[in-house]
Amino acid sequence: MTDEETSAEEFTVTPWEVEGKIDYEKLTERFGTEEVDKDLLKRIEDIAGATHFMLRRGIFYSHRDLDWILKEYEKDNEFALYTGRGPSGHTHVGHLMPWILARWIQDKFNVEMFFQLTDDEKFLFEFENTLEKTHSYALENAKDIIALGFDPDKTHILIDTDNIDTLYPLALKAGKRLNFSNVKAVFGFDNSTNVGSIFYTAIQSAPCFLPTELKGKDVPVLIPCGIDQDPHFRLTRDIAETIGYLKPALLHNKLAPSLDGTGKMSASQPKTTIFTTDDPEDVDEKINEAFTGGRVSAAEQREKGGNPDICAIQNYRYFIFESDDEKVFDIEKRCREGDILCGACKEILKENIKGFLEEHQRKRKEAEERLDDFLFDG
Amino acid sequence: MTDEETSAEEFTVTPWEVEGKIDYEKLTERFGTEEVDKDLLKRIEDIAGATHFMLRRGIFYSHRDLDWILKEYEKDNEFALYTGRGPSGHTHVGHLMPWILARWIQDKFNVEMFFQLTDDEKFLFEFENTLEKTHSYALENAKDIIALGFDPDKTHILIDTDNIDTLYPLALKAGKRLNFSNVKAVFGFDNSTNVGSIFYTAIQSAPCFLPTELKGKDVPVLIPCGIDQDPHFRLTRDIAETIGYLKPALLHNKLAPSLDGTGKMSASQPKTTIFTTDDPEDVDEKINEAFTGGRVSAAEQREKGGNPDICAIQNYRYFIFESDDEKVFDIEKRCREGDILCGACKEILKENIKGFLEEHQRKRKEAEERLDDFLFDG
Repeated sequence: MTDEETSAEEFTVTPWEVEGKIDYEKLTERFGTEEVDKDLLKRIEDIAGATHFMLRRGIFYSHRDLDWILKEYEKDNEFALYTGRGPSGHTHVGHLMPWILARWIQDKFNVEMFFQLTDDEKFLFEFENTLEKTHSYALENAKDIIALGFDPDKTHILIDTDNIDTLYPLALKAGKRLNFSNVKAVFGFDNSTNVGSIFYTAIQSAPCFLPTELKGKDVPVLIPCGIDQDPHFRLTRDIAETIGYLKPALLHNKLAPSLDGTGKMSASQPKTTIFTTDDPEDVDEKINEAFTGGRVSAAEQREKGGNPDICAIQNYRYFIFESDDEKVFDIEKRCREGDILCGACKEILKENIKGFLEEHQRKRKEAEERLDDFLFDG
Repeated sequence: MTDEETSAEEFTVTPWEVEGKIDYEKLTERFGTEEVDKDLLKRIEDIAGATHFMLRRGIFYSHRDLDWILKEYEKDNEFALYTGRGPSGHTHVGHLMPWILARWIQDKFNVEMFFQLTDDEKFLFEFENTLEKTHSYALENAKDIIALGFDPDKTHILIDTDNIDTLYPLALKAGKRLNFSNVKAVFGFDNSTNVGSIFYTAIQSAPCFLPTELKGKDVPVLIPCGIDQDPHFRLTRDIAETIGYLKPALLHNKLAPSLDGTGKMSASQPKTTIFTTDDPEDVDEKINEAFTGGRVSAAEQREKGGNPDICAIQNYRYFIFESDDEKVFDIEKRCREGDILCGACKEILKENIKGFLEEHQRKRKEAEERLDDFLFDG
């Protein structure tokens, strides 16, 4: 039993396992994080001169020391952004959420961005993976990062096995201060866990210290990431100051729901997830199959209305594919009133997704020629 | 209690701890290694056209698969040598033993040599060490390797933090197949062991696979090393074939005794050890203070003779500083017969050591300019 896992609470969240229906409020209590409240949202808006729908809608709902990051920024002490991805396959739209927000923050705050692609992690934690496969997916995923429009002069994509010369000395410093008890308690490891996986969290800590090393002075780091990644950085925060670095701050998003309405979007369930590489036919098929809050018959739905609260289509719109609040709430209202049926509602989402993917895939193609502008060569 | 440690047998041997008086015969039983017997020595002599005093005298006394290495060599399947050192300070003469034999094997068999300087290990396992310090000692120790006369065209010195880009992918493959139970059993780790140390053995395994990677075909590897390093390579041998590599073979030496006659030569006990950087005054002082098998008075020694079996001076001569068997046995005989006293005997050893150090330090100085010829840049 780990501190992530309590059978009484009926859900489990670790970086490698999400099970059950997550109660996000309970999760922040369990993890000991802070709520992103109205005051904090207002402060971001004041500095940025704008807001982002993922903040406004509470998708990024939890944080550690975000208030400190803003305070330092106001004192002209610029922070660096850091997020990452385990390249076990193509990018799905759930992965994009922290990247989209990071892109927005880079734009509004004009800050450096470090992106870690953990090919070593996905090799170590998934028995059937080869390093060749995870490294090749790292390059595929890098194209998605670039396609989102990050600033090439301020964005550095690290691939663990390519940049291990930079990461390893920093990981050693972290790894010397974390013992088996620590990682056992936080990740639920046991005696059968491989020694690479046991060490791995130190590699994920390393980029937290890199901006400070590169600038030769203390640089605050803000990590936008899924709440499931918090356990890694809780450990980083525990040891950062003892090895001479600032604690990284975090901004956590809720995990994108799956299209079948059962849980977190997952690359291992391709039918219930939209990948950035999907073609229009894939989108049609997946959205047609998606779980909705519709009634058993069109007649009943027209009479009693649908239930958008449990609807994967509405969730997708809310989490990622419709930035216009009015449009989101308008459809929700029409659904409840029986004014729109699931088929028509799905068509709207399909168009949104296909529009996004068409542009993304074009930029992704262009990114093939631009990899060298982004890959870290420090 | 680990499999290295049995209080009933009153000695402990792990890569990081040697305690008690080692019974080498019991140790080979405990570790499950083979004796280097007369047949094997004869086969080496037949191939090499010569023998080496450290083999002849049973200093290299234990092995794993050395017979296989020779058989492959006779089939024109050349092996590579691999040994290493944890750079926690300057090199002492005990460290030189496997290097001297490796140099001789390279010369007689004309083979490639890989030398690993584990600055990461000494950082992880010794709390007070910094990476800057262990890396700087790695460069110091590299000069000692070069000074011994290895062939620059066939010798590759790896420093872990400098060559981690090469080592890490190989270490990941090993680290994925070793779990906490494995390293706990072999090294005696517990929940308080840091995660870097837990992973570290995978880094020490990596050079076993490197010659095969570089040549693109299976290359047998022979590791001359202190018997205390066997636990690492026992793990390597357990997993090598499952990840597509040959098991490394080993040739183990007994550990060089300390000058105070109590145990293994140790860098942490500088007074009882000769360092390659010692000056003639250090040698005089340390040898003057060394433990001998002498009697309480000169008169008694002349009458009853000394005891060379327990004498650190005679041990130093036997293990390292006198390659001529006749001279070693002649002094031993004269000691037993009371024909030579400790003072005179010490003078002979001092001259041997100072002669060795004078030449070694000259070559070590020259090595400063030759580091680039030896440092691996693969």
